Amino acid sequence: MDRTVCLELDASDPLADRRGAFTLADGLVYLDGNSLGVLPRTVAARLDEVVVREWGEGLIRSWNAAGWVDLPRRVAARIAPLVGADADEVAVGDSTSVNLFKVLAAARRLRPERRVLLTDDTNFPTDRYVAEGLAALGDGLEVRAVAPDAVAAALDDEVAVLFLTHVDYRSGARTDAATLTAAAHRVGAMAVWDLAHSTGALDVDLHAWDADFAVGCSYKYLNGGPGAPAYLYVARRWHTQADTPVRGWFGHARPFDFGTTYAPADGAERFLAGTPHVLSTAALEEALAPFADVSPATLDAKARSLTDTFVTLVTERCGDEVELASPREAARRGAQVSLRHPHAYALTQALIARDVIGDHRPPDLVRFGFAPLYVRHVDVHDAVEVLADVLATRAWDRPEHHRRNTVT
Amino acid sequence: MDRTVCLELDASDPLADRRGAFTLADGLVYLDGNSLGVLPRTVAARLDEVVVREWGEGLIRSWNAAGWVDLPRRVAARIAPLVGADADEVAVGDSTSVNLFKVLAAARRLRPERRVLLTDDTNFPTDRYVAEGLAALGDGLEVRAVAPDAVAAALDDEVAVLFLTHVDYRSGARTDAATLTAAAHRVGAMAVWDLAHSTGALDVDLHAWDADFAVGCSYKYLNGGPGAPAYLYVARRWHTQADTPVRGWFGHARPFDFGTTYAPADGAERFLAGTPHVLSTAALEEALAPFADVSPATLDAKARSLTDTFVTLVTERCGDEVELASPREAARRGAQVSLRHPHAYALTQALIARDVIGDHRPPDLVRFGFAPLYVRHVDVHDAVEVLADVLATRAWDRPEHHRRNTVT
Repeated sequence: MDRTVCLELDASDPLADRRGAFTLADGLVYLDGNSLGVLPRTVAARLDEVVVREWGEGLIRSWNAAGWVDLPRRVAARIAPLVGADADEVAVGDSTSVNLFKVLAAARRLRPERRVLLTDDTNFPTDRYVAEGLAALGDGLEVRAVAPDAVAAALDDEVAVLFLTHVDYRSGARTDAATLTAAAHRVGAMAVWDLAHSTGALDVDLHAWDADFAVGCSYKYLNGGPGAPAYLYVARRWHTQADTPVRGWFGHARPFDFGTTYAPADGAERFLAGTPHVLSTAALEEALAPFADVSPATLDAKARSLTDTFVTLVTERCGDEVELASPREAARRGAQVSLRHPHAYALTQALIARDVIGDHRPPDLVRFGFAPLYVRHVDVHDAVEVLADVLATRAWDRPEHHRRNTVT
Repeated sequence: MDRTVCLELDASDPLADRRGAFTLADGLVYLDGNSLGVLPRTVAARLDEVVVREWGEGLIRSWNAAGWVDLPRRVAARIAPLVGADADEVAVGDSTSVNLFKVLAAARRLRPERRVLLTDDTNFPTDRYVAEGLAALGDGLEVRAVAPDAVAAALDDEVAVLFLTHVDYRSGARTDAATLTAAAHRVGAMAVWDLAHSTGALDVDLHAWDADFAVGCSYKYLNGGPGAPAYLYVARRWHTQADTPVRGWFGHARPFDFGTTYAPADGAERFLAGTPHVLSTAALEEALAPFADVSPATLDAKARSLTDTFVTLVTERCGDEVELASPREAARRGAQVSLRHPHAYALTQALIARDVIGDHRPPDLVRFGFAPLYVRHVDVHDAVEVLADVLATRAWDRPEHHRRNTVT
């Protein structure tokens, strides 16, 4: 596979026109959109308008006049089609951690007689911490973590909630969400999905999966900016019964009545809590514009094509210097490929020094994310050229590449 | 009291030079800083830099290079002196509602054998909802709400936590936090304070009060922008025992090790949860700059002077058209005065139409907040002139002032 083939793939890419919506420095190959998405071109101007006109001039009046009060709802309506949901099944706000806490508590309360929160032991550590924090509130609740291939067998009538991340943050392995959701339902358990590494890159379809709840992150493939507000999903069948543990006023049916009695809003919005972070949420709203009319299936096809190209080129060019740590079959991967290398941290730094940005996950992985909206096949080609050269010349083996940063 | 007296008071105001740090339209009298603070002049440029340079160009590298990873800690260090705390006793992030949930859960777990969360029935409704949501998680926990003057008598050995708001959001009444904290401690209960309507305007001194936990809002008197991240306080004596119910990775001692075992960070930081909202938090950091070298006592003195001026002028100019709904004695008020009027909503709208911005709280209050950093005595004078005229001419009694907005 050569550069020409990659250019041809780009020429027939149905998402090719979207790249122009993002600020991307010349010569930079950014393969870390699974950690922090790039800046959409119109966000800075929109945010400046929100700050200077809406906040600075409009002041308190902007809750009505600039529509701040509906901002979470407008953003939910933009995210919903990317996860196969209806707009009123999605609520936007807080962080993924806080949202996971909320939906785990809610899911468990729909199975009050059961005592186990089940996950796999490769799940993102925070997801386990959050579940353990909920369990520590008492009530005999217990978190059980088993190997990924043991999840189905571990489902029994003690399990209140199965909670999993759709795409593994290290290996990039993609779980069969529909099958595992069905397996959970067969034993009467609820299924909660973490979509942090999926939404905006893969064919997420919560309705087809029959998921009960989900949470996700908007600063990765959704390009909402560092620490952008997260979202959550509540299946329509739970809208009247689901109860958030964090009853904040923005989840109230009539927050501006200031009534002393809690009355939850309709739909997923009852899971909102405090006042929305307007600046961050407005940035996210604007950042989602390039996803207009893009189907999750189209994103998924592009992601598979990009990761296939990467795997093929690495296999051709890098020999056995690195080991593929992700599934070889595209349908079993997210929009991410991880490579194993004994000096993965230094290798990551050496690539960054050559303007190929991936990231390191301990102990021995270099991760590469392929955001379908702005990464091209030719970028993949050029990245592998650099990788092959860094490996061949052992360019990673310089003191400056071993120096540790706080965030890796 | 006339305008000249007000100008003289402004001339000797030790905070007079701070007003220049804020964008304030000519002719506008903004008395709603207790709902949404005004825009500090340097925030828009700072936020643009964060978006364009740090996010757009620096991308993932900015977690280290631009210090995003330390951002919550830097902001905590700016808020700590305004609440009489040490920097490591404060954590910045999430919303006030989420933070209240976290500290109520933590406080209660330090009194596991007790079953009552006590508050007063004038507390901000969300604070009650949040406590009730925690109680609904089981364990026999119960929320008890009594009249403000019955709180001391309701403290007994069943009470795990006394949680109160320092300044009443409707009446503006200021509670004696030190006395009530001591009363709670005498029966072995924990004391949790909501500082939403205090910090940045009053002499908050959590050390002197001997408070156990506190939460607060940064978009009111701290001017952090709409929905700016909130903060919480954990007294040093609880730093090793306090346990957050929401165990997110930013509250972990070593988040970037991605370890499967939860190990809380030192100090209040263990109460952080998900990835910080960098854009909102960076705006808040910049917004706090005008508080440099300002003591809470200085803010409090100015707030008392402003509200005294307002009460005096209203008494002189408005006759019995409005009723004072706040304590007449300045030391018993926050930086806020509420007036009662049978058509409070329309009166609020009529004032806004004349560029005097307060807000309405149902059923019959008009609230006025006096942010000590940018409101002048002459603004107070001019606002009362308009108020007196609107009342005398019944200018509020026009159809357009009765038309309801979503947010009041």
